Amino acid sequence: MNKQIILLPGDGVGKEIMESAKLVLNVIASEYGHNFTFHQHAIGGDAIDHYGTPLPEDTINACQHADAVLLGAVGGGKWDSLPGHMRPEKGLLGIRKKLGLFANLRPVKGFAPLLHASPLKEEIVKNSDILIIRELTGGLYFGQPSERRENGNAVVDTLYYHRSEMERIIDKAFQSARLRNKQLTSVDKANVLESSRMWREIVNEKSKDYPDVTVEHLLVDAAAMKLITRPNHFDVIVTENLFGDILSDEASVLTGSLGMLPSASVRSDGVGLYEPVHGSAPDIAGKGIANPLGMILSAAMMLKYSFGMEEEAEEIEEAVQESLEQGYHTPDLQIKGGKQVGTKELTEIVVDN
Amino acid sequence: MNKQIILLPGDGVGKEIMESAKLVLNVIASEYGHNFTFHQHAIGGDAIDHYGTPLPEDTINACQHADAVLLGAVGGGKWDSLPGHMRPEKGLLGIRKKLGLFANLRPVKGFAPLLHASPLKEEIVKNSDILIIRELTGGLYFGQPSERRENGNAVVDTLYYHRSEMERIIDKAFQSARLRNKQLTSVDKANVLESSRMWREIVNEKSKDYPDVTVEHLLVDAAAMKLITRPNHFDVIVTENLFGDILSDEASVLTGSLGMLPSASVRSDGVGLYEPVHGSAPDIAGKGIANPLGMILSAAMMLKYSFGMEEEAEEIEEAVQESLEQGYHTPDLQIKGGKQVGTKELTEIVVDN
Ligand SMILES: [Mg+2]
Ligand SMILES: [Mg+2]
Repeated sequence: MNKQIILLPGDGVGKEIMESAKLVLNVIASEYGHNFTFHQHAIGGDAIDHYGTPLPEDTINACQHADAVLLGAVGGGKWDSLPGHMRPEKGLLGIRKKLGLFANLRPVKGFAPLLHASPLKEEIVKNSDILIIRELTGGLYFGQPSERRENGNAVVDTLYYHRSEMERIIDKAFQSARLRNKQLTSVDKANVLESSRMWREIVNEKSKDYPDVTVEHLLVDAAAMKLITRPNHFDVIVTENLFGDILSDEASVLTGSLGMLPSASVRSDGVGLYEPVHGSAPDIAGKGIANPLGMILSAAMMLKYSFGMEEEAEEIEEAVQESLEQGYHTPDLQIKGGKQVGTKELTEIVVDN
Repeated sequence: MNKQIILLPGDGVGKEIMESAKLVLNVIASEYGHNFTFHQHAIGGDAIDHYGTPLPEDTINACQHADAVLLGAVGGGKWDSLPGHMRPEKGLLGIRKKLGLFANLRPVKGFAPLLHASPLKEEIVKNSDILIIRELTGGLYFGQPSERRENGNAVVDTLYYHRSEMERIIDKAFQSARLRNKQLTSVDKANVLESSRMWREIVNEKSKDYPDVTVEHLLVDAAAMKLITRPNHFDVIVTENLFGDILSDEASVLTGSLGMLPSASVRSDGVGLYEPVHGSAPDIAGKGIANPLGMILSAAMMLKYSFGMEEEAEEIEEAVQESLEQGYHTPDLQIKGGKQVGTKELTEIVVDN
């Protein structure tokens, strides 16, 4: 297959780990006979420095004509004093919006050699393998009015959803569950919120179109508990924007592998933006010691969710797992009896596996 | 001191554990020369069975003239098929509202002999001692409009707060922090929500009135992570209704002692309703094996927060701790090398300690 991939390395360690992803993708391309064409563009602080804006028109145009986008990381203390619209993070929010990416996919998976770093007991967290799907463009973070009232003595924010916004994310969740263990947990607060009651109705309607997927409903407060007490209960979790923000961050610390977690923001036609959950880590940028595995696993997610290349994605995931099992790791991780290596070396070990 | 205390045993194990609380309070009264007068009234399913409503007028009147209210538990499968306004839970929500109880206090504390039951590693959870203060009457759960729109194709819920609602809960939090380690964590989503920006402004204004209390601001998603990775970082957490609902339930499973946790719903003048976090457990009701410690600790909270009897409250808390350290526990708990006892026996052991 021919695929146009935009690379947005961004700031801090973004450049180094992007090189790792590119190398791994090139190896996959030649092995499976694909043709991946890479186009690199600026975003975030890097774009501010060179073009005076965190999201140049040129970058937007390129992304709008691409099959998928890989992003390293944005931000850093260097740009902290700039006004709101000139912050590196605006580049990321802006490109997600321009591309209409409404579904945030956050897989949380434990790696056996790293479970010792989990705050949870090993018998609780082992075998956890969760995909959290969060609606990204609606709900309380975007609804209007959002304003002071009564001479500044009161305030409102508005949780608004159109039915179509709920339907498309719920469809995405059922489809994602089909690619996995076919267990879907829909999280809401239907005992209190009208929006949650509508959400639950749509989940129940849609479930008729996916009879092979088992659905359960869970209240958001109960979900926050169960993620800790029985994380291996879950397969796919789907929820609205605010609940998803809280639960996906809560889940990200369960396995002790925050620095390894990939993420995706996608839309219905498969176009998506893929990035590691970790930040730009300016303190270790340029030292060649950044952990490239979150970025490499983000590239694997791209193959699976944007290109439908499940076999290729699995090969990368298995190579990452094997490398860790062999004890190789960057300095941010610890593996008992393991061997500490740099970004490039770890990437080559993954490629060899 | 003379105090009028309303007892609302409610359903399931509520009756048995209320007897335990009463016994402990009587011992404290005679030891310290207080005069506690108890008046028992019906609520929940019990009230439905006897008076045809989950919250009889007689119960409301009694509570409105009392110094504090102790509640056992409400609910059970028996009443599950009744219409919404006739559910036992409506009795609890109703009495909170009638009394104007706007602050929900949820302490989360680990007990050394029980930490083995925590999903967290012992080195992470030990020394955790958190008080979560949740606003209970405003925000997204109560704001209007909350309705379908556009012929049922859209939906809104409204997060509304009046300044005075924020001020009183934030004052309560500062005052509570003063009774503890003087560390206050205010949780919001100020990078996105206008209501959170107003909340943060008020916290910063109020902090000038409490210069002895140290304040930090934390975003709700970051708080959901930190509760798991560093629970012993926190002293008092204060937040609005929805965030508090999620975070207090999340925190309740951290120490492995959910069945032991007390809670309070209070207002500014000190009047409050105190109840264990656990439910009515109809399956073990009447068997004499229910764990009375959550109820006993709720009575201790009443002494501390409604009556200002800190010494008396501490004596109860220490007696509970000692009883567990001596290995005594009801069948819901496990203590290595411990001794399993019934509700009455455990209560007497607490009284002796
Ligand atoms: Mg977040
Ligand atoms: Mg709750």
